[in-house]
Amino acid sequence: MPDSIPANSVGLVTPLLMQFDDPLTLACGRTLDSYQLMVETYGTLNASRTNALLICHALSGHHHAAGYHSMEEHKPGWWDAYIGPGKPLDTNKFFIVSLNNIGGCHGSTGPVTQNPATGQPWGGDFPALRVRDWVHSQARLADALGIQKWAAVVGGSLGGMQAMRWSLEYPDRIGHCVVIASAMKLSAQNIAFNHAAREAILTDPEFHDGNFLSHSTLPKRGLSTARVIAHLTYLSDDGMGQKFGRELRSGSFAQGTEEPVEFQIESYLRYQADSFSNVFDANTYVLMTRALDYFDLAREYGDDPVEAFKQAQCKYMVISFTSDWRFSPERSREIVNALIRADRDVVYGELESDFGHDAFLIPNQPRYWDLLTSYMSQIEVAD
Amino acid sequence: MPDSIPANSVGLVTPLLMQFDDPLTLACGRTLDSYQLMVETYGTLNASRTNALLICHALSGHHHAAGYHSMEEHKPGWWDAYIGPGKPLDTNKFFIVSLNNIGGCHGSTGPVTQNPATGQPWGGDFPALRVRDWVHSQARLADALGIQKWAAVVGGSLGGMQAMRWSLEYPDRIGHCVVIASAMKLSAQNIAFNHAAREAILTDPEFHDGNFLSHSTLPKRGLSTARVIAHLTYLSDDGMGQKFGRELRSGSFAQGTEEPVEFQIESYLRYQADSFSNVFDANTYVLMTRALDYFDLAREYGDDPVEAFKQAQCKYMVISFTSDWRFSPERSREIVNALIRADRDVVYGELESDFGHDAFLIPNQPRYWDLLTSYMSQIEVAD
Repeated sequence: MPDSIPANSVGLVTPLLMQFDDPLTLACGRTLDSYQLMVETYGTLNASRTNALLICHALSGHHHAAGYHSMEEHKPGWWDAYIGPGKPLDTNKFFIVSLNNIGGCHGSTGPVTQNPATGQPWGGDFPALRVRDWVHSQARLADALGIQKWAAVVGGSLGGMQAMRWSLEYPDRIGHCVVIASAMKLSAQNIAFNHAAREAILTDPEFHDGNFLSHSTLPKRGLSTARVIAHLTYLSDDGMGQKFGRELRSGSFAQGTEEPVEFQIESYLRYQADSFSNVFDANTYVLMTRALDYFDLAREYGDDPVEAFKQAQCKYMVISFTSDWRFSPERSREIVNALIRADRDVVYGELESDFGHDAFLIPNQPRYWDLLTSYMSQIEVAD
Repeated sequence: MPDSIPANSVGLVTPLLMQFDDPLTLACGRTLDSYQLMVETYGTLNASRTNALLICHALSGHHHAAGYHSMEEHKPGWWDAYIGPGKPLDTNKFFIVSLNNIGGCHGSTGPVTQNPATGQPWGGDFPALRVRDWVHSQARLADALGIQKWAAVVGGSLGGMQAMRWSLEYPDRIGHCVVIASAMKLSAQNIAFNHAAREAILTDPEFHDGNFLSHSTLPKRGLSTARVIAHLTYLSDDGMGQKFGRELRSGSFAQGTEEPVEFQIESYLRYQADSFSNVFDANTYVLMTRALDYFDLAREYGDDPVEAFKQAQCKYMVISFTSDWRFSPERSREIVNALIRADRDVVYGELESDFGHDAFLIPNQPRYWDLLTSYMSQIEVAD
């Protein structure tokens, strides 16, 4: 818990559960008759309603992007390092909106909430989701907040995919699109890692085809293994080597002993995964990784990303990190090249980092801070 | 099955189960009072016994490296592409010995064989193993075959670690050491992938602390997920992309359908993993990955690989593949640099390949073939 709230924090925040009663038809063809979104906002919407900024979360993210829910909270929101007064996503300038997406497990309508047709948790019966479903639900959220046009939509990884989709689905409702550590579609290797993680979950006997809640159990082992697999792809080889090397947590390399060794990296991954599996929902994990696999920015534009981006009107910033091997700089350069050929306005930053894919979340990276600050500060908003 | 045995095949081969009754004390301090090794040989030992070549297998390998066990066998041994008359490991010149290591699950003493103390399968009680234990048992095998000195010890990946350890443990019993796609020790990332695979096995409720046979069950799901994880690290991003891309095995990207898609890469990985989990032993998998994690060539030489290699007398060939990210070329260059500083004679080949770590097993790679052929042909053997 913080001893005191830092001066550049958005401070104590209270999530808001918003109700939407207009039916939402999803890409899979099924319809949610109504749904709820768990939302946080930071800063103040200006009179002209031109300073609103949408944060789209990644696979395991949620609405709590900045500040503290209480003085007892150990850690602030997941992107607190970059959101707040005087920070790159400056709440003195912007009204920042962050939500838990549909299908999530942090309060929005999803597998752990009640299916009105049955009175039971949705579980494995929750509809399949695609990135565009989130974008559509976020547009309804903008409507409800009286926001006609976002000054910017910002996201890392899966969040960056939502930002890009926004720029194509609602070209007149987004001024700037900030795409960090993302890709226009997953590679076979990306899909394969998601597959491995899903296999761990789907083959856990406690999963029960996703209806584990009605069996009063949780597929924690499968979810934990899935998280270890995913976590591995978020870190870089060099970064892990520098942080953990071959250091032991317990046991010894000495001969003549059979006491098993545990490496620090094993202990770290297990602890992180166990914590994750205590708070995250296995169905949400499966749904979100499937949305990642499906995402293909240009599919409906003749598989031509240049054609896709010609639909857009906003300006773009694209950021990648050198040691990110999940969505490598090459994937970001593909986005940038397509934007340039589509005559779109784009700024690209390829940042040196040992933090791998996780870099987009990591505090205290001066060039990342400066690049975000520089771009966000030149976004014009009315009074 | 082969319609006919190819002319450059070693042909039909019969494995031999060899009995060893001298107790073998393992690095962990425990002793195997006796043990058996499943062995295959190809070619003929010459009169001077100077043409013997030892093949050390990798994580999931075994004794059956070349030829066919019967005309009904679908595929030849795992390294058949490079072992045979006129092939790089030329059976017209060499007497080639291949074995299933202790702890394996293909006939040698291991978790699936009987523990004489209990009359039950060893299961989870099989002793922990290190690379040196295999090397020591292979030295006993050489003794039994009347081979004082190997013309060469050859191995890829974990097999390359055995070859390197041979050169330090028995410097006067090895003429050439061929180390392919290997490393002097695992990185934190390597260990982390092994950890993820082990977690999948150890958390499978059917694993029963390794004593699943006495529960009349098999931890197939965990082993299958483990194999998917490992398999991923054997392939390269580019290679997978070229072979599978985002092609679908079933389902459709069309909107308005909830039929789940299955990507070709998913189908491929699942099929391979299911096949693997039907024939491989989960305890062996755990034992072998732990031996990989433990391996540290220079630990007992003051963590200085130059000091380590100063103990050696043989000549070395080291080979790496550009797209291998499990044991990257950088790991091989570290071996080569240490050998050079230790004044050892070394040839190094860094080969272009899209096949990732698996490249060392893949047929029809002309430069790999040529490099192996060139090196092996200059090895001098008496009559």
